[in-house]
Amino acid sequence: MDKVFQYLNDNKQANLDQLQQFLKIPSVSTDSTYKKDVKKAADFVADYLREAGFKHVEVEETKGHPLVFAEWLEAGEQAPTVLFYGHYDVQPAEPLHEWKSEPFNPEIRDNRIYARGASDDKGQVFMHLAVFKAFLQTTGELPVNMKVCIEGEEEIGSANLYELLQSNKEKYQADFAVISDSGMVANDQPTILYGLKGFTGLEFTIKGPDNDLHSGMYGGAIRNPAMAMAHILTSMKNEEEVVLVDGFYDDVEDITEEERELIRQAPSEDFAVSTGAKETVSEQGYTAKEHTMARPTLEINGLYSGYQGEGTKTIIPSTATAKLTCRLVPGQDPDAIQQLLVKHIEDHLPKGVTVSIKKEPLSAKAYRVDPDHPLIKKAAESFEETFNKEVVYVRMGGSIPVVEWLDSIYQVPVVLLGFGTPDDRLHSPNESFPLDHFEKGMQTIANYWNKVSTNS
Amino acid sequence: MDKVFQYLNDNKQANLDQLQQFLKIPSVSTDSTYKKDVKKAADFVADYLREAGFKHVEVEETKGHPLVFAEWLEAGEQAPTVLFYGHYDVQPAEPLHEWKSEPFNPEIRDNRIYARGASDDKGQVFMHLAVFKAFLQTTGELPVNMKVCIEGEEEIGSANLYELLQSNKEKYQADFAVISDSGMVANDQPTILYGLKGFTGLEFTIKGPDNDLHSGMYGGAIRNPAMAMAHILTSMKNEEEVVLVDGFYDDVEDITEEERELIRQAPSEDFAVSTGAKETVSEQGYTAKEHTMARPTLEINGLYSGYQGEGTKTIIPSTATAKLTCRLVPGQDPDAIQQLLVKHIEDHLPKGVTVSIKKEPLSAKAYRVDPDHPLIKKAAESFEETFNKEVVYVRMGGSIPVVEWLDSIYQVPVVLLGFGTPDDRLHSPNESFPLDHFEKGMQTIANYWNKVSTNS
Repeated sequence: MDKVFQYLNDNKQANLDQLQQFLKIPSVSTDSTYKKDVKKAADFVADYLREAGFKHVEVEETKGHPLVFAEWLEAGEQAPTVLFYGHYDVQPAEPLHEWKSEPFNPEIRDNRIYARGASDDKGQVFMHLAVFKAFLQTTGELPVNMKVCIEGEEEIGSANLYELLQSNKEKYQADFAVISDSGMVANDQPTILYGLKGFTGLEFTIKGPDNDLHSGMYGGAIRNPAMAMAHILTSMKNEEEVVLVDGFYDDVEDITEEERELIRQAPSEDFAVSTGAKETVSEQGYTAKEHTMARPTLEINGLYSGYQGEGTKTIIPSTATAKLTCRLVPGQDPDAIQQLLVKHIEDHLPKGVTVSIKKEPLSAKAYRVDPDHPLIKKAAESFEETFNKEVVYVRMGGSIPVVEWLDSIYQVPVVLLGFGTPDDRLHSPNESFPLDHFEKGMQTIANYWNKVSTNS
Repeated sequence: MDKVFQYLNDNKQANLDQLQQFLKIPSVSTDSTYKKDVKKAADFVADYLREAGFKHVEVEETKGHPLVFAEWLEAGEQAPTVLFYGHYDVQPAEPLHEWKSEPFNPEIRDNRIYARGASDDKGQVFMHLAVFKAFLQTTGELPVNMKVCIEGEEEIGSANLYELLQSNKEKYQADFAVISDSGMVANDQPTILYGLKGFTGLEFTIKGPDNDLHSGMYGGAIRNPAMAMAHILTSMKNEEEVVLVDGFYDDVEDITEEERELIRQAPSEDFAVSTGAKETVSEQGYTAKEHTMARPTLEINGLYSGYQGEGTKTIIPSTATAKLTCRLVPGQDPDAIQQLLVKHIEDHLPKGVTVSIKKEPLSAKAYRVDPDHPLIKKAAESFEETFNKEVVYVRMGGSIPVVEWLDSIYQVPVVLLGFGTPDDRLHSPNESFPLDHFEKGMQTIANYWNKVSTNS
């Protein structure tokens, strides 16, 4: 390991230079004008892997952007096989005028590197590439059998990856997966992210009359679709923040006492202060932290009906539409929950209106790995040894679809080694990544491969 | 009376010609580019009144468009004083491409005269002008003392008229008022419109966090403003179409059994068929007709929160806004009801959000005149004698502010002699007015002045 750490140290500047080269490529997956740049970024990753010492490297064309796949399987049978997943595509940079430096011309300020993709996900992906190289160029081998899968469509839903994962099981099969595309709860506070919420949703429209009506002439004869919508929505969730849809909580694997103790140690966000809301509100029996991390939710994301301009317009609107999404926890099946929502809406439709429902096709199960799992414990140790600080354990209210696919298709643990920080500004102008996390991150990763090299 | 009817008959074509002259003037009050035409129309009315035989005629400048005022007060003390109100301004004609003939170049087709303002209100105003002339040019006198008030801002809210009515009571004071700016329930079905609903409203915005939030990271900690809005709305009106705001119905003068019998005789609109709604829905104990005509209502006119675009956006919206209006019935005070709404919203505000309320400044009390009132009975007789058909009695779900101002400022009965028809297409392209109503209307009006000339 000393040789590896020494190599990393000797190549500090080289690593930083090459990261900047990587960041310069505007690999914006959602925008077809950047298609060639996306390909260029794929080639950058592939070339680096070859140079690092991977013999089997392919840039696989897909119906969309290419997927980089590489293998090094010479660690022997006692060593586990790991699937490392990352993505080389990035969010669009807009709005451009809000950037202090150019999004694709990396700048270092205040010990952070500023560029689109610095944190999500190129900075973190590159750390892994550099560690692979450090091992292969010094010891000539990796401590584990490694399958590398770096795609170019994460920011646009990874549709092609999903297909490939389903139809090429042997190719991607591993003992566990590792992803570095998340963050710590605070700067310099190593965090074990051991759970993610699942997701399902739908949109529905209530229709009353064919057209907006004069509210004087028709008020009292025609059910108002906006009011009908309000009745359906309040039948789905009460003012105590409990979801009322029949069966919603039936399969929930609730948070345990041990977990409550565990997450209690993570720093608490003062949600009222951070968001500007008057006060926090959560389900009785759960703190705001517990509810955001480990209880299922149902939220209205959009709601609209009738006149939205200035002043008054005395109409009964023709229609009312709501967009809903649910965050799910372990035990809940997304399709089953979606069906419960559909049934609930249909059962609670007031007289005098009709409804049309559009199910959201994208969905995901929740993900949770046991915090005591040996792989997780080794991740915690690796963090603690580098950062010199005890890790905190958290579950995230958000979802990472690829984690959930790996879990459901391959049934393997997914270890989330996140090196980002709350100040990184993902998806926003002036995205950045701290250089000390870049350094310490590589050490943590190198340490981790070493620890997991034996199947114990 | 025979002389008057003869004069009207002899001047059929002349009347039609002059009506067309009147209709040619594009007196669009809302659009400042037509300011001179609006003035021209005022002058047309004033000139006609002078020519007809009114000695006192003024075109009064206001802060907006001019008001035409004329008096003929030589009918003696036994005769009542009547205030005739009308308006010479019209709605904009747009969208122009939908008109079959030019909106300000009147055309006669299918025994109707097509032009903007043909029904609302020039056709109906002109009938009165022609009747004044018929009396004055034959008998030399009117059967009643007459005050004529024809304004140029009805389509834009009559703000200046309201001020003048309040500050010039002696000038406009009369025993009762007559307005011809409404319609019959069907072609050739004379209608006594004996009630109008009042009006009040407000807009309110619920605010949660300062910005839209990631629904995964914050769902469970932050009250969703859209859901809070739904809870407030459903606390205001239930699924049985009853308004739940405390005190809302306290002062309602409910529809009597006699009235129910009376309006039962008016043709019923099949609201589901005419609007395309699945079925009608009304308050228990009232038919759809009764509820639209005579029960107060609370309607959502607009509702909006969060994401309205295509697809999904997983946010907790920052705000949610609703626009509400109420139609009121006799007994209810608009300002008091508005205050009840404000109090209700404040009392039902869920924890975790704040609210800001914008009261709608425009309001009106309901208007109702006793169907048995002598003036109403005489109107019914006048209609029946000309149209050879029994009148029907209805109350309207909509509001006509000037009627309510005359009622509340002067406490005089307002008689609505409406000659329009459901096919007139007010405010729409291809507005028209039936020529037989134009003819019969003048006869009805002449008949009516005669009947009311004695205070019995």
